[in-house]
Amino acid sequence: MPDSTFADDSLSRLRLQMAEHRLDACITTYPVHVAYLSGVFPPKDRLVAVLVTPESATLISPHPPADLPQTMSAMTYEDYSIDYVVNPAANFAGAFDRAVLTLAATVRRVGLEPAYLALEQWEAIQRSLNVEHIEDINPVLRQMRMVKTAAELPLIEHAEEITDRMYAAIAGNIVAGASEVDVFLTTLAVVKADPSKPAELDGDYVSGPRTEAIGGPPTTRRLQVGDLLIADLFPRLATHCADCCRTYSVGKPPQALIDRHALLEEALATGEKAIQPGLPTRELYAIVRSVFEREGMAQYFPHHAGHGVGILPSEEPRIIPGSDEILAAGMVITLEPGLYLPGQGGMRLEDNFLVTENGCRCLTHYPRRLTVL
Amino acid sequence: MPDSTFADDSLSRLRLQMAEHRLDACITTYPVHVAYLSGVFPPKDRLVAVLVTPESATLISPHPPADLPQTMSAMTYEDYSIDYVVNPAANFAGAFDRAVLTLAATVRRVGLEPAYLALEQWEAIQRSLNVEHIEDINPVLRQMRMVKTAAELPLIEHAEEITDRMYAAIAGNIVAGASEVDVFLTTLAVVKADPSKPAELDGDYVSGPRTEAIGGPPTTRRLQVGDLLIADLFPRLATHCADCCRTYSVGKPPQALIDRHALLEEALATGEKAIQPGLPTRELYAIVRSVFEREGMAQYFPHHAGHGVGILPSEEPRIIPGSDEILAAGMVITLEPGLYLPGQGGMRLEDNFLVTENGCRCLTHYPRRLTVL
Repeated sequence: MPDSTFADDSLSRLRLQMAEHRLDACITTYPVHVAYLSGVFPPKDRLVAVLVTPESATLISPHPPADLPQTMSAMTYEDYSIDYVVNPAANFAGAFDRAVLTLAATVRRVGLEPAYLALEQWEAIQRSLNVEHIEDINPVLRQMRMVKTAAELPLIEHAEEITDRMYAAIAGNIVAGASEVDVFLTTLAVVKADPSKPAELDGDYVSGPRTEAIGGPPTTRRLQVGDLLIADLFPRLATHCADCCRTYSVGKPPQALIDRHALLEEALATGEKAIQPGLPTRELYAIVRSVFEREGMAQYFPHHAGHGVGILPSEEPRIIPGSDEILAAGMVITLEPGLYLPGQGGMRLEDNFLVTENGCRCLTHYPRRLTVL
Repeated sequence: MPDSTFADDSLSRLRLQMAEHRLDACITTYPVHVAYLSGVFPPKDRLVAVLVTPESATLISPHPPADLPQTMSAMTYEDYSIDYVVNPAANFAGAFDRAVLTLAATVRRVGLEPAYLALEQWEAIQRSLNVEHIEDINPVLRQMRMVKTAAELPLIEHAEEITDRMYAAIAGNIVAGASEVDVFLTTLAVVKADPSKPAELDGDYVSGPRTEAIGGPPTTRRLQVGDLLIADLFPRLATHCADCCRTYSVGKPPQALIDRHALLEEALATGEKAIQPGLPTRELYAIVRSVFEREGMAQYFPHHAGHGVGILPSEEPRIIPGSDEILAAGMVITLEPGLYLPGQGGMRLEDNFLVTENGCRCLTHYPRRLTVL
């Protein structure tokens, strides 16, 4: 299981930051960061926590995962019994209490995520620890997540490979008459056939006039000849996501649509060539947009030019004009030029890229053309 | 949209409880209770809150829903911009601050859910309100949710109708050679064809030897003649769930399996006949189990005999030997006898029932027999 390997790296990185910030412990209950630090995406709607010190780490979860980072141990709590009515939140609180108590002897300075830590857990921390200083570690963890470790890359690449297969499945199975829901189910079948747990899929599935609104969930609307179909897919396989987009034409497209899609391809390729460490993301946005500006089409490109991809399908950095973020080697980002013309439909093209020392490597392999269904 | 109607009733009920507990305001950020009080299931992974006073109610959400209870207003916060990097958690905190400030003049006694309220929001409450008393309202809301209002019933019945159609879709489409994932996709297609948002589906999809483990997500395992297939489906349509189970036989079953399934049917019917207000749930458990005890099979029935169904597919009351809960008119519960024989496979049968003044009404209409695929 490669999942636990990447979390070993996450913990090592966090401990470096803890040393720099002189923190004796970090505690998070935010599922995204529990996944990042434990290597296991928490089961849906379950309360979980990770407590990290320089020497130890504890995952609190109702069920112990098979693989955890080497320095991490699991503390479980009961969330089901037929012998009495179980209150999982109370049992989680009890486990959290016990875990915090083990920190009491040495911990004075604590990193927390106040936007996510529950009052009940804060009271346990106050009760058991002699807290001299608390610090919001959410920005530290978000910063860390932007630059992927070597161990995260195969996980993202697996999600990319699944995504390539989803695009092929649409091309191979969907024709006029199928509904947007059918397109969704066709792609979900690819995700669910993977043994990863979770193997989940969200996305935009919009066709015909709906493409002008950029995105949305699938409906029962049936594809008609002459429609465009935007399929923006963000699967999660185990812990990591991809986020790619292809536009399909239902039936042979008129030359005007082929030409417009060629602009997306050019904008994507232009952005791709510019990606390198040190490039401000606002400049990357401007570079992608410049292709549309040249054609007098920029007003039809209303959204970001891309964003980071990792444990979340959309995370920092943001490829927008208002960002101060700078590309760094190890970031994984999307570029997603799109054009949405009132009365004529919308189209979008999105690939994922690893920022390398010298430029970038494209992680998406499905052809970039407007595919005909 | 009937969704907002049921939340009007939820709010009225909460206000009665607030008067009894002498609370000036109740504040929750727990998505399940935000859904219960606003009538809208919060978008995934978004921070939300509901603040209720005797006169007013506010929903804090990134996007304003179309329909809210009559006394509820929406306060939105920005979670996307291309003009600057948005921190949704910080924007939620800002909106929450402003909403709490409007309570400052009159609110002294506050109902909260300390297991879910974030430290950041607790600090805002402490900063802005002159809090004299806080009370955990989680038990109050859980108690309220057990007895459904008249306006909730059509929502649950809609989920039941969709579930009946899913069972028919399995019977009509699945044959030996299909995988558990195919069964899942066949049922999901029914859910996704419904215009409700969200229209979601979780469930147990286990076949062959996997049925002995009671439940689990679908895998690529292919159905073989001679297999049993357990399909325990818990869809959510808009806000409310159903939770039913059928067992299928792949190919003509031997008489022993038909006889064993007849025991499930008898256990379910026996429980159904016993349901009435005032019956302790532990007795209902014993009544369902008694059929298996008579046959010397009780050791193969390891789980609960049922539970409540509503905004969550599995909620209180718990039909278990260790519960002190008592059935009351308006509760919606499942009964789910099951038998799991090592080496011979498992089977389970589950219907949903509304507890009425005189007994109960079964909400599930799909035939209870062991259906042959």
